[in-house]
Amino acid sequence: MDELEEFRRYRERMNERILSAGNLGIKRFFALDSRAYEKGALDVKTKELLGLVASTVLRCSDCITYHVIRCAQEGVSDEEFFEALNVALVVGGSITIPHIRRAVDTLDQCRKNNMKTNPSSSSL
Amino acid sequence: MDELEEFRRYRERMNERILSAGNLGIKRFFALDSRAYEKGALDVKTKELLGLVASTVLRCSDCITYHVIRCAQEGVSDEEFFEALNVALVVGGSITIPHIRRAVDTLDQCRKNNMKTNPSSSSL
Amino acid sequence: MDELEEFRRYRERMNERILSAGNLGIKRFFALDSRAYEKGALDVKTKELLGLVASTVLRCSDCITYHVIRCAQEGVSDEEFFEALNVALVVGGSITIPHIRRAVDTLDQCRKNNMKTNPSSSSL
Amino acid sequence: MDELEEFRRYRERMNERILSAGNLGIKRFFALDSRAYEKGALDVKTKELLGLVASTVLRCSDCITYHVIRCAQEGVSDEEFFEALNVALVVGGSITIPHIRRAVDTLDQCRKNNMKTNPSSSSL
Amino acid sequence: MDELEEFRRYRERMNERILSAGNLGIKRFFALDSRAYEKGALDVKTKELLGLVASTVLRCSDCITYHVIRCAQEGVSDEEFFEALNVALVVGGSITIPHIRRAVDTLDQCRKNNMKTNPSSSSL
Amino acid sequence: MDELEEFRRYRERMNERILSAGNLGIKRFFALDSRAYEKGALDVKTKELLGLVASTVLRCSDCITYHVIRCAQEGVSDEEFFEALNVALVVGGSITIPHIRRAVDTLDQCRKNNMKTNPSSSSL
Repeated sequence: MDELEEFRRYRERMNERILSAGNLGIKRFFALDSRAYEKGALDVKTKELLGLVASTVLRCSDCITYHVIRCAQEGVSDEEFFEALNVALVVGGSITIPHIRRAVDTLDQCRKNNMKTNPSSSSL
Repeated sequence: MDELEEFRRYRERMNERILSAGNLGIKRFFALDSRAYEKGALDVKTKELLGLVASTVLRCSDCITYHVIRCAQEGVSDEEFFEALNVALVVGGSITIPHIRRAVDTLDQCRKNNMKTNPSSSSL
Repeated sequence: MDELEEFRRYRERMNERILSAGNLGIKRFFALDSRAYEKGALDVKTKELLGLVASTVLRCSDCITYHVIRCAQEGVSDEEFFEALNVALVVGGSITIPHIRRAVDTLDQCRKNNMKTNPSSSSL
Repeated sequence: MDELEEFRRYRERMNERILSAGNLGIKRFFALDSRAYEKGALDVKTKELLGLVASTVLRCSDCITYHVIRCAQEGVSDEEFFEALNVALVVGGSITIPHIRRAVDTLDQCRKNNMKTNPSSSSL
Repeated sequence: MDELEEFRRYRERMNERILSAGNLGIKRFFALDSRAYEKGALDVKTKELLGLVASTVLRCSDCITYHVIRCAQEGVSDEEFFEALNVALVVGGSITIPHIRRAVDTLDQCRKNNMKTNPSSSSL
Repeated sequence: MDELEEFRRYRERMNERILSAGNLGIKRFFALDSRAYEKGALDVKTKELLGLVASTVLRCSDCITYHVIRCAQEGVSDEEFFEALNVALVVGGSITIPHIRRAVDTLDQCRKNNMKTNPSSSSL
């Protein structure tokens, strides 16, 4: 089982555990989170790029992995991907570089897997 | 003189002061910063939305003001603007709300001023 | 008009502006935010202390002001208040000190005003 | 040896290494850190919840693990635990979700181990 | 009364207020904070540069103002000052630029005032 | 192969991958990053200490590892190293402690390996 699959399974299992705990606030937050990336005035691809850059400047590994996978699924090209990461790098500085290395590593894995499946129906 | 004009002048004056200080590294960083938002595989509007969301989740007031002005200049609609802020709000949480209030306030001033001029030729 | 009253009015006015903009995600987030501090297994006072400490370590001025007012309303004593701030100071370090100064300043104003009114029916 | 035990040992070994290095400032900081969570006007359970929420919004994995263990030891119920995490989630946004998943995972391990021993006599 | 003098007075007044509140943990933290910048294996000037860079990447306005004043007092040259800020800029990214503008503005005021007095005997 | 060697190889491999992707902005940022730590008005050792403290307060594991190795190479003594970490601890608070543990662990490995080689010719 590869790293991305392991990541997907852990997130899915723990999301189910959390959502079954009966806290309504958390449940609604997860719903809001999913909806924030749905098509509206901005298309899904743009929103995923927004999520990728926000996750990168905040240096959240799992969030970056999630949005890299989603960007790959939405057809983001390599040029677009690196331009978005460049914005994150300039805004967030060299402390984002370790996360940029992993983001590129994840993208390469996605391209290799020709990843098509949604990483999860719900949240980050 | 209104707040946005005061903001523009202070930034312009201090940027000149900094760029004239002779530190080559800082000078080059300012150039990189400007170029990160120029048209490439992604268009300028998308890049400004990326800058807006990155600045909002990092809660940098002056950066937000700058990118709100630039978004207004690039023709971002109200719906697009609020959808981008919603991504920032979900990713960054309620601590972004004070900055979202000021971002909307700045947008309203831009719309009123029918702002057309570039806030500055150089950096944040 | 004092500073706290000015703060309250600006927040109220901008919250109305934002909620009337028609973005459902933002609207629901504001509702979730209010509900997170309502009585449940934990009482309101404990939750406001959690909000105060979270806001202080994240150094969000307006959020701190809001939760200081709410703590004062919920009957948090000076000793309890300083112990909560001490946890924030130890966790978040000396960069929280400027916000701790303002938090104490705000508490002193609340005590002087014998503040009773809710700073706002809705969010931070 | 399970993950929590490995975590405890590494922390204990490195804390000893650091405290034996002869830097008085660091030594005193570790003492301040321990004392911040001792009973005062606020009880230990409330202070551990403050530590948990502060660690979660700042997304410090080891700090979260430590405070989850301490909360379990202080008799925090599942409802209280999820309400505190909900405050952290709303304040800190979706970037806290990966840490909330691990916090819940750690809590489940604590419940299973019926954990009673203090994770360490000293600091985070 | 100029801005730096106003800053000094507010900090001094609030520090006294906080230290007189009787919370031993906070009192000890303020003492640790002062001592961290005293001469040891590293000289005071180097430690103030460390404080300046740490404050800049964390974007704490009052902390930056304090350390800029202290750097000026310790004889940091303009070249040294801009090189330290350049490290902060590269590490922390363009979101530090608004704080770098104010840091340079503060340095210019210090040079003009030929500032000699310690901004405060105690903490940030 | 030890941990530090694995770290070095992954960074080197991914840096090459990123630099070969053809994004000029990212390439130039990496160059700026390297140059920020070169000798100027401040010597290399002081700049590496600035990088170490900045990375520690921002809690970037890989950045800390990099600067610990570089500090060891530049002849930083144990006393100097702990004093710099103490500044980071006071400024950044107890959430830096897990990173301080790992920084000290890395330093101990460097001393044991009598590390002399540069961890990488390029960036973090």
